[in-house]
Amino acid sequence: MTPFRVRILGSNSSQASFGRFLPSHLLTVDNKSYLIDCGEGTQFQMTKYKIKRNRIQAVFISHLHGDHLFGLPGFLSSFHHFNRYEALRIFGPPGIKQFINVCLDASFAHLGYSLYIHEITENDVPSLIFEDNKIEVFAFPLKHRVPTIGFRFNEKVPKLNIKPDAIERYRLSVDQVKELKSGRNVILSDGNVLTIQEACFEKAIARSYAYVSDTVYDESIVEHIKEVDLLFHETTYIHDLVNDARDRMHSTTKEAAEIAKKAKVKKLIIGHYSSRYADITPFESECKEIFPDSHMGVDGYVFDIIK
Amino acid sequence: MTPFRVRILGSNSSQASFGRFLPSHLLTVDNKSYLIDCGEGTQFQMTKYKIKRNRIQAVFISHLHGDHLFGLPGFLSSFHHFNRYEALRIFGPPGIKQFINVCLDASFAHLGYSLYIHEITENDVPSLIFEDNKIEVFAFPLKHRVPTIGFRFNEKVPKLNIKPDAIERYRLSVDQVKELKSGRNVILSDGNVLTIQEACFEKAIARSYAYVSDTVYDESIVEHIKEVDLLFHETTYIHDLVNDARDRMHSTTKEAAEIAKKAKVKKLIIGHYSSRYADITPFESECKEIFPDSHMGVDGYVFDIIK
Repeated sequence: MTPFRVRILGSNSSQASFGRFLPSHLLTVDNKSYLIDCGEGTQFQMTKYKIKRNRIQAVFISHLHGDHLFGLPGFLSSFHHFNRYEALRIFGPPGIKQFINVCLDASFAHLGYSLYIHEITENDVPSLIFEDNKIEVFAFPLKHRVPTIGFRFNEKVPKLNIKPDAIERYRLSVDQVKELKSGRNVILSDGNVLTIQEACFEKAIARSYAYVSDTVYDESIVEHIKEVDLLFHETTYIHDLVNDARDRMHSTTKEAAEIAKKAKVKKLIIGHYSSRYADITPFESECKEIFPDSHMGVDGYVFDIIK
Repeated sequence: MTPFRVRILGSNSSQASFGRFLPSHLLTVDNKSYLIDCGEGTQFQMTKYKIKRNRIQAVFISHLHGDHLFGLPGFLSSFHHFNRYEALRIFGPPGIKQFINVCLDASFAHLGYSLYIHEITENDVPSLIFEDNKIEVFAFPLKHRVPTIGFRFNEKVPKLNIKPDAIERYRLSVDQVKELKSGRNVILSDGNVLTIQEACFEKAIARSYAYVSDTVYDESIVEHIKEVDLLFHETTYIHDLVNDARDRMHSTTKEAAEIAKKAKVKKLIIGHYSSRYADITPFESECKEIFPDSHMGVDGYVFDIIK
């Protein structure tokens, strides 16, 4: 089965602390990767975890607070060390275009690849904002102090694969093969029906990942993240600081777990820990009380979705 | 004796590699500090080395290549965690003002302190660009691919201190004490001359530091760094790559040592190593052949000037 993997590159919020870097996730689907948020030092984490950065197709920035953004100029500039020629797309809230252009111009950066920057406005969400042959990416609004976007990555269902001996055995035409690959049964020349179950390998099931950072507790996102295989939801605070979370428009452990439960997701990753916490183990235990399949996201951790 | 200390926060060039971060030095004179260059991750190094960042009075950026610059937005934004209220001055080449303002505006940064950004043009160098009660800072031109500035930090000679018993013994007036502290002998009421040698503690000797990064080999800088106690001169390459150095407008080991020798400096620190080098020990030995008091600068290293 092809990989569908989320790698945590940074799990802290605001400031790097206790060895935890600033927000960044890498989603890898088969041989393509997608970067989500890019805090200062993200390029160092890529070196540390031996990330093949030329596989990155697109970058998705949730919002423009510095802890999610300030690694971008260094990441974009340093591609000349990796001989990148393939175009790169960047998606983020309004303002990201000027930020990137000024940083690159001021620093005399020469990019050997084309950069396409897409600003996602409030009017653009919820919607499909990107697709390639591996994934579709949907953006939806989050409620934070500044314009913020959540992202849902849906794997594209691969076409069915015909079993090697089926073509000869059933004397299939090119058109019949196309029909079967597209998921439709065909009628053979003897009048019998050949089902996809007989002719094809078992169908792969599309996998999905949703990234929710930063947001206050907000049930309106449930419809956008419904039944994803893997949900990342920020948990800046342990639940005893729920008032601080409300004030700063962040979420607590119990709130993230509640959203995971309501959205019937398969697995929850938590992170975006406040730098006040040296020990983050209570985050996981608090979430598990409400949503048992909750897991701490920590720098370097990998979550594979296997179906 | 008050400290006059240079701390290396990052010693690599272009990309962080082999545990070496991007260019940044911290000069501390008594209870005040001055930051020189600010590559991505500089704020992480400050945390690692327990730097008291509220003591930083001013930031000096040599040029706007990303490896010397991209740590600045994070450094400036995160002062709210340290309750900084004191104004901060930043000096750098033209373009730095727009870079900083766009980064801070885009990321909704709220600074609790005043920021004064000074652009140093080609016409402004060489000249005195900054002074406070501890130091004077002179800027001078370097020859690199983009506008680049070298900096010389001269400690201000502290006023003389009167020996505690001298005032009573010689019945000194307030004006006479002022005269002595300013370095002038005084005539006592009995007609005798009281010398500063008799009345005062031995005078402290001003110390100095010069920062030269990035530059091609250039003897025209010698006059600006003459006889400094401590010279940092970039050594991007071992001397066998002198042609690469010329092409990229950088310096080699032997070139840096030659400049140190011609300028009759007391001690040379080297750094700004290309990320091609896993082992940097040959840098020091090559420099020592020409200038024996040469020392590798590596992240975390401290150089104290004691006179």
